[in-house]
Amino acid sequence: MDPAELTERLRAGDTRALARAITLVESGHRAAGAVLKAFRGGKKSKVVGLTGSPGSGKSTLTDRLIEEARKRGEQVAVLAVDPSSPFTGGAILGDRIRMMRHHQDAGVYIRSLASRGALGGLAGAAVGALALLEAFGFERIFVETVGVGQSEVDIARVADTTVLVLTPASGDAVQAFKAGVMEIADLFVVNKFDLPGGERVVQELKITLEIAPARPGGWKPPVLSVVATKGDGVAGLFEGLEAHHAHLIKHNLLEAHRLERARFQVESVIQEWGRRRTLAGKDLVALVAAGELTPEEAAGRLLKQTAHEPGF
Amino acid sequence: MDPAELTERLRAGDTRALARAITLVESGHRAAGAVLKAFRGGKKSKVVGLTGSPGSGKSTLTDRLIEEARKRGEQVAVLAVDPSSPFTGGAILGDRIRMMRHHQDAGVYIRSLASRGALGGLAGAAVGALALLEAFGFERIFVETVGVGQSEVDIARVADTTVLVLTPASGDAVQAFKAGVMEIADLFVVNKFDLPGGERVVQELKITLEIAPARPGGWKPPVLSVVATKGDGVAGLFEGLEAHHAHLIKHNLLEAHRLERARFQVESVIQEWGRRRTLAGKDLVALVAAGELTPEEAAGRLLKQTAHEPGF
Repeated sequence: MDPAELTERLRAGDTRALARAITLVESGHRAAGAVLKAFRGGKKSKVVGLTGSPGSGKSTLTDRLIEEARKRGEQVAVLAVDPSSPFTGGAILGDRIRMMRHHQDAGVYIRSLASRGALGGLAGAAVGALALLEAFGFERIFVETVGVGQSEVDIARVADTTVLVLTPASGDAVQAFKAGVMEIADLFVVNKFDLPGGERVVQELKITLEIAPARPGGWKPPVLSVVATKGDGVAGLFEGLEAHHAHLIKHNLLEAHRLERARFQVESVIQEWGRRRTLAGKDLVALVAAGELTPEEAAGRLLKQTAHEPGF
Repeated sequence: MDPAELTERLRAGDTRALARAITLVESGHRAAGAVLKAFRGGKKSKVVGLTGSPGSGKSTLTDRLIEEARKRGEQVAVLAVDPSSPFTGGAILGDRIRMMRHHQDAGVYIRSLASRGALGGLAGAAVGALALLEAFGFERIFVETVGVGQSEVDIARVADTTVLVLTPASGDAVQAFKAGVMEIADLFVVNKFDLPGGERVVQELKITLEIAPARPGGWKPPVLSVVATKGDGVAGLFEGLEAHHAHLIKHNLLEAHRLERARFQVESVIQEWGRRRTLAGKDLVALVAAGELTPEEAAGRLLKQTAHEPGF
């Protein structure tokens, strides 16, 4: 299928074409750019990122949030992002199956993203997939990431609203701290609140947030407690998402956020380009190792070489 | 002081000149490149990276390893790298003071690195500082990082031998897993082994490592237990470091590692350049946000613009 035909079918609301287009983006196919440019617009989606440790119950929570969004009549998409570590790779499959029950619902589209083929890396691919889902008309997009590392922080940056899911398990909050995720979350959710220590974690978080730097527009991240398996507190969380979105609009932050997302996308392309070029530029790297060139000089040469190549 | 004079003083073994040169690298000063090129060579240092959660006792362990290296007559440098999160910034100061007792020893040089001024980011600055310390003649360099995030993984890549420090505290090993640090460590150390659960963590790690992918040259990462506060097991750990270094030489991996370090350095420069250029290139980013340009096209334009600028 050529980009023009694919775009036509996307405009017609064909979900198989959507799956195909996301795969193009995921694999870094040349045609992806043409499709992304041709198929755009429509209403803006509300993009909610969910991050947290494996075992924090993110997927069960996402499942509940889908329910909640559907009750309100929203068309919902879920983008499950897996950085495919050699250790954690494939972990997401079980989660996808758990969310399968929504697969019967035409108003719900679930997709996982695992490849690193795209020039902008996985985060870049996520932004591309997000643009497609938005143009396709989903009013709500949940981006779920596995783990709490840098790549998760990066991916969270593409969401309008970021939710950090924690549990009463000891050290969870402390770890989130260290990973720098505390700074980026707009809402904190203590899931499995019915386990021992739930109230303690909530209090710890609240104290920590009091000394945290102010957020844009004076937003104060709430700490919410839920029991996703039972659905307790999920409606309250959904209202929290809406409140944050209203805050973004009121303070004119949504547009700034979209610009930051685009900036991040361009930066991701450059990063991945740098990774590939330094892998290919063995001669220049050897000169750096031998002390004949500084890293800056080698980087400058790679830049100049590439600038003269057609097609970039 | 101009680069030539600084280099002269470095060659004369002036540690104040060394401190000055590292500051140039840290702040991304233009003169840093000239000094790095002029002041090189000498023997290769054995570079050992230590990483692990705050509270794992890395600094106390590093202190013990300094002792051990000094017993063997080695000249030792410590590079303490702090990514300066708004939350963790400054945490390293206490650690430095703890290591202060070695400051009286002319065979020990301790330096922390915190700025992000260098074009290659913090990791790039660490590589630059490492090159200076090596040229200065230190036979052993310990690179200590705070936390277990991506930047720590990156920084660990610059070491010849990477040690992951864990404790019997619940969840520590699991967190290391998630952060992808398990894959990069050459030796695993369970510190505070005298606390409850020490043996269990050692066994868990051993089981996990059995299913881990093979390491270059067939290296099997050992799991060692120590009590750094008492010095128990530190001599054994030092022998483990030596064994890994011998393995690298035997399998001709040291050179490959140096090349990987240089590659990483060039990549870091490109990453930081991308971060700065996309921050400055607001017009291009706005075109991406508006869908007029793909991220790849915007990245290409930034590349072409920069390639024509003098000095890069």
